[in-house]
Amino acid sequence: MNSELSSQQVKDIGEQGLLERLQRFCPPEIIGDDAAVLETAPEQSLVVTTDVLVDGVHFSNLTTSPEDAGWRAAAANLSDLAAMGASPLGITVGLGLPGEVRVSWVERLYQGMTQCLQKYNTSIVGGDVVRSPVTTLAITAFGQVNPNQIIRRSAAVVGDAIVVTGVHGASKAGLELLLHPQLGQNLKDAERTALIHAHQRPQPRLDVLPILWKILNSQSKIQNLKSKIPVAGMDSSDGLADAIIQICRASGVGAVLEHRQISIPVAFDHWLTQEQALAYALYGGEDFELVLCLTQELASALVQHLGQGAAIVGNITSGSIVILHDEQKKFPDQVLSLSQGFQHFNS
Amino acid sequence: MNSELSSQQVKDIGEQGLLERLQRFCPPEIIGDDAAVLETAPEQSLVVTTDVLVDGVHFSNLTTSPEDAGWRAAAANLSDLAAMGASPLGITVGLGLPGEVRVSWVERLYQGMTQCLQKYNTSIVGGDVVRSPVTTLAITAFGQVNPNQIIRRSAAVVGDAIVVTGVHGASKAGLELLLHPQLGQNLKDAERTALIHAHQRPQPRLDVLPILWKILNSQSKIQNLKSKIPVAGMDSSDGLADAIIQICRASGVGAVLEHRQISIPVAFDHWLTQEQALAYALYGGEDFELVLCLTQELASALVQHLGQGAAIVGNITSGSIVILHDEQKKFPDQVLSLSQGFQHFNS
Repeated sequence: MNSELSSQQVKDIGEQGLLERLQRFCPPEIIGDDAAVLETAPEQSLVVTTDVLVDGVHFSNLTTSPEDAGWRAAAANLSDLAAMGASPLGITVGLGLPGEVRVSWVERLYQGMTQCLQKYNTSIVGGDVVRSPVTTLAITAFGQVNPNQIIRRSAAVVGDAIVVTGVHGASKAGLELLLHPQLGQNLKDAERTALIHAHQRPQPRLDVLPILWKILNSQSKIQNLKSKIPVAGMDSSDGLADAIIQICRASGVGAVLEHRQISIPVAFDHWLTQEQALAYALYGGEDFELVLCLTQELASALVQHLGQGAAIVGNITSGSIVILHDEQKKFPDQVLSLSQGFQHFNS
Repeated sequence: MNSELSSQQVKDIGEQGLLERLQRFCPPEIIGDDAAVLETAPEQSLVVTTDVLVDGVHFSNLTTSPEDAGWRAAAANLSDLAAMGASPLGITVGLGLPGEVRVSWVERLYQGMTQCLQKYNTSIVGGDVVRSPVTTLAITAFGQVNPNQIIRRSAAVVGDAIVVTGVHGASKAGLELLLHPQLGQNLKDAERTALIHAHQRPQPRLDVLPILWKILNSQSKIQNLKSKIPVAGMDSSDGLADAIIQICRASGVGAVLEHRQISIPVAFDHWLTQEQALAYALYGGEDFELVLCLTQELASALVQHLGQGAAIVGNITSGSIVILHDEQKKFPDQVLSLSQGFQHFNS
């Protein structure tokens, strides 16, 4: 890219010019009408999810390159689809931009989004670009799911095992290392890089779904599980504690988590105290793992198939509270609550 | 609503509190998961469209009540669905808000949206609310259409008649009357009210679709039109001239419009000059009528069924230019171009 092009501002090429640039990132067959048309197969439900991200609130040029901001925005929406059991059909992107934003910044943002989408065989299928005093990114993602395979928060039952599909706390750790490079002097270079990568390029766990369906199918041949999927869940985008509390609230149940079963990055051992590591894992957020509640038998099979940090971290109980228990008795039992998270508007 | 409630600001109740307030505007069965699930019938295509609206750019408290801003935003997206031949399944709403915005303002915005959606038997099925320095509204609408009935811009053929489904210029006239109340002293009160209403509460023309399919079905019994729908089109949200130029560009054809066939509100006769009336009709925008290109026979049948300002305004020709012709020779022929419209970023 020559320097003349990379220094262009949005106002230099106008809305139409910008849209033409951005069409390169869409499949050519869907361009040119008022709306995008997507084929849906018979007996499929449509799943939609939407996120709005604002410069200075949800991303910042200080800590996030435009490519990473784009990747993370796409990943968050794909993770919401995965959390419902849905396969992605595409996303729409609504973009509000000050006239002074560089065209190259916008192109890099779209590159990050499409890199993430391509990895999961999906794409940007529509959008809008408007003038705004603040850079704003509104993404809506669509997916489809067999109506019998929808994963809901409200389906957890007493006795279920709680499965996490990977480690928690890595994204938060990566952010801290970006903000405070002097931290983690004991970390190996590869560990530091991996934690930062976990923050910059989170992986929505769409790969879990075919494994989950396979395990359920082999089970349903033995028992009769045809009518209702015996899996509850959501993603851990707002933290592991939040996910478990939300599932319990929606299902009218409680939970007991076992401290030492919560899988964290190995690198935490020679950097963080146990308390810090636990706080990152429970409240850090943006790990985009799935938190699934299912029978002990299915849970064991799933964890075995997934490997790499997947674990049974606790059980669903009667009642309504979520207790963190330490089998080794180093820490007293504590009740988890959402107030240790954050509320955007009160800040 | 008591005064204590109506003076609440968003920051007073927090993100969660606001979301709980807004859930009242959604069907209860779709609340509580990461994404909304919508049933799609077999052999239906999914249609999606998205719009971003920014305070001070696309709406303003000076000219638009929050209810009207909400109605207009919903109507614009439903109009995009109508323009594709699609029936609405729902919309998602992403909202960026400064902490100082009144809760009652947001509720009134949602009331306007849901009033419009209810009229067309659809609803808000998901959303996101975030903090932002500027009020921003990102709407994504979904619809479904039989794949054989998708209306595309690119399907116009030489010899087609160009149909408008109603009058043009009313929305622009209504806006001018709101901005400059001293205008239009010759207008009757009912005329003034009707023009302002056309601006504040535009009607997406989803009602045209069943009429169109009925006419096509009765035709296809005579001829064999099963395989391909013989209709091109889009909506006139950016003006009638823009719609015809876009259709011609996408279809690789030209057009001749007949000046006196372009239907305008009767009230224009005792207010505007012919030149002003024409400019409002061609370039005013936001009338949200459909502009359809189809055979002369189908066009005549459609206009007859629709009545109320529906008209054949011209014909598709070979070539690539759009000519405005005056049969009465009061005005010389002119070539219409998009440059008489506007580009957001250059302003």
